Amino acid sequence: MIGIIVSGHGHFATGITSSLELIMGKQDCYTTIDFPFGSSKVELEQMFASAVADMKDCEDIMILTDLFSGSPFNVAMEKAAADARIHLYYGINLGMLIEIVSRRMFRGSYAEVADGILDVGRQQIGLFNAEQLKEKAEDNDEEEL
Amino acid sequence: MIGIIVSGHGHFATGITSSLELIMGKQDCYTTIDFPFGSSKVELEQMFASAVADMKDCEDIMILTDLFSGSPFNVAMEKAAADARIHLYYGINLGMLIEIVSRRMFRGSYAEVADGILDVGRQQIGLFNAEQLKEKAEDNDEEEL
Repeated sequence: MIGIIVSGHGHFATGITSSLELIMGKQDCYTTIDFPFGSSKVELEQMFASAVADMKDCEDIMILTDLFSGSPFNVAMEKAAADARIHLYYGINLGMLIEIVSRRMFRGSYAEVADGILDVGRQQIGLFNAEQLKEKAEDNDEEEL
Repeated sequence: MIGIIVSGHGHFATGITSSLELIMGKQDCYTTIDFPFGSSKVELEQMFASAVADMKDCEDIMILTDLFSGSPFNVAMEKAAADARIHLYYGINLGMLIEIVSRRMFRGSYAEVADGILDVGRQQIGLFNAEQLKEKAEDNDEEEL
């Protein structure tokens, strides 16, 4: 199974993972690395090293970070540069994370999970407008998560 | 000042806000509404009603949700349908949230904050590749957040 490591500033990683697991259930081969106020880059490096070591049997590892900058991304970048199994994504939103986890369950390879995944994340960003109101109203009875 | 309400499943809202505040500092006119496992839609509706009531002096309110579906979005949608001041966004990532908060500090109107903001969020989603390694290495000494 493809390994997933989610990391970001503060409690980004555990926060977005609580949303994911509320919708999709508990995940295997999945680690969160928070970087709360007061913690050091050395601690972050140790957590990344430990997470990657735990995924020694994974053919591929996706690291999903909050931003294209900052310590979580920078530490992840060092890991990605040193290990060809690691694929580093940034700027994730919940829809993209759900899609990655869903595809991971049903598809085999990293290439299949990754195919068009950036566009999936981008398409899930939007501004609600009144025209969408009608179709949503029809859905609402069904989905109450 | 434009009011901001962030809401999502689980602890999405407090999680992403901890990242935001670690980078940008504490925010005014800003409320988080979590929807953890075991809480009800009625509680969620009450929290939204209270948050919007607290922002009675705001000319505009941006509600930023995790997904275009689920109870946080659906409750927000009802609020947006009933109050022309409310603008409802979904699928936010941290980069988009930081940009909204930054623009809010320096610009006056909602139109200025909202201008192109969906594209900002979409552009911040990406897959790191080796070509980016060199330019990041040059930045790393400067940014250690």
